[in-house]
Amino acid sequence: MQKPLDFYFDFSSPYAYLASTQIDALAAELGRQVNWYPILLGPMFKAMGSAPLVDIPLKGDYARHDFARSARLFGIDYVHPAEFPIATVAAARATWYLQGQSMVQAGDFAKKVLEAYFARQLDIRDTDVLATVADSVGADGQAMLAGIQTDAIKDQLKQAVSTAMERGVFGSPFIFIDNEGFWGFDRFPHIRMWAAANPA
Amino acid sequence: MQKPLDFYFDFSSPYAYLASTQIDALAAELGRQVNWYPILLGPMFKAMGSAPLVDIPLKGDYARHDFARSARLFGIDYVHPAEFPIATVAAARATWYLQGQSMVQAGDFAKKVLEAYFARQLDIRDTDVLATVADSVGADGQAMLAGIQTDAIKDQLKQAVSTAMERGVFGSPFIFIDNEGFWGFDRFPHIRMWAAANPA
Repeated sequence: MQKPLDFYFDFSSPYAYLASTQIDALAAELGRQVNWYPILLGPMFKAMGSAPLVDIPLKGDYARHDFARSARLFGIDYVHPAEFPIATVAAARATWYLQGQSMVQAGDFAKKVLEAYFARQLDIRDTDVLATVADSVGADGQAMLAGIQTDAIKDQLKQAVSTAMERGVFGSPFIFIDNEGFWGFDRFPHIRMWAAANPA
Repeated sequence: MQKPLDFYFDFSSPYAYLASTQIDALAAELGRQVNWYPILLGPMFKAMGSAPLVDIPLKGDYARHDFARSARLFGIDYVHPAEFPIATVAAARATWYLQGQSMVQAGDFAKKVLEAYFARQLDIRDTDVLATVADSVGADGQAMLAGIQTDAIKDQLKQAVSTAMERGVFGSPFIFIDNEGFWGFDRFPHIRMWAAANPA
């Protein structure tokens, strides 16, 4: 069995949402599973002296235009959220909690939460929204909400952010195939080319 | 005849070099010509409060790795320059000068200068190097060196940078098809998809 793809993402990242709708197909094509690893971009932006994309002059305008355009080109539903970016710590902790049960379920949850925020105009800071999504993928939403209050889960997310930064993650989505990292939704073709050139 | 692709680039941009080796094929596929529009990233970085890519923590390490990896994946010769980034005002002015004679010749010159810097370890700040490249594409290198000293050409580059920023250019390469702008070597597939969805 080949190593899973490590899919690092922030729940407030439009390009992570777009990638989340395509990563399963890419993984299947490469004969791999997906590790769904939510992180928080805040600490990374701090290390880089950077800011949220849409707050950067020139680049922000491009990004706002490109989010919806990229979605359209790939036939993905997209409605730019009224509040953006937002704090995504609850959704991230919830995904780490669900991984304790099942990575596949955690992935289904993550995909649906990204879709809720970027296509269904739901507020994913609202833990009731998160619990409903958890229930819809066969998890126990109430148990999850209790879980994300624990120090163990809080620490797990903190540790995940540190590990990600040690591996060189600075943006979202950031995908590792074996130990080779690729930044961005637009790098799927490069991942395919890299896999073809580096058979496991 | 469809509108040319406007190919904005900085001569010190590795991704512009990579794109310069593929843009003619993309343009031919789309039934278009290429306008070779060199600009300077400096004023754009200033507007964004940004810095050269390789100077940014985390992102810089990724970029250095990705330049050579992307070249390898696409089968493009690449030797990361010993001095990088460098001032590229002479090469940029030279390209604008050559456009006064022929856009095709200016494009051939630009491609060879990018290759000289990113694959042949030549110092493209050296105007003798630029004159030699100009001669090799059938232009008059000495006339070009005289031309880039004129206020008309200096102003033309300044104006080009202003126009680019007004059009939303903030990075390199930046490619317009009709008036739709795409940032990055990794956006060629998006340009193809956009062209297919928006027939002229």
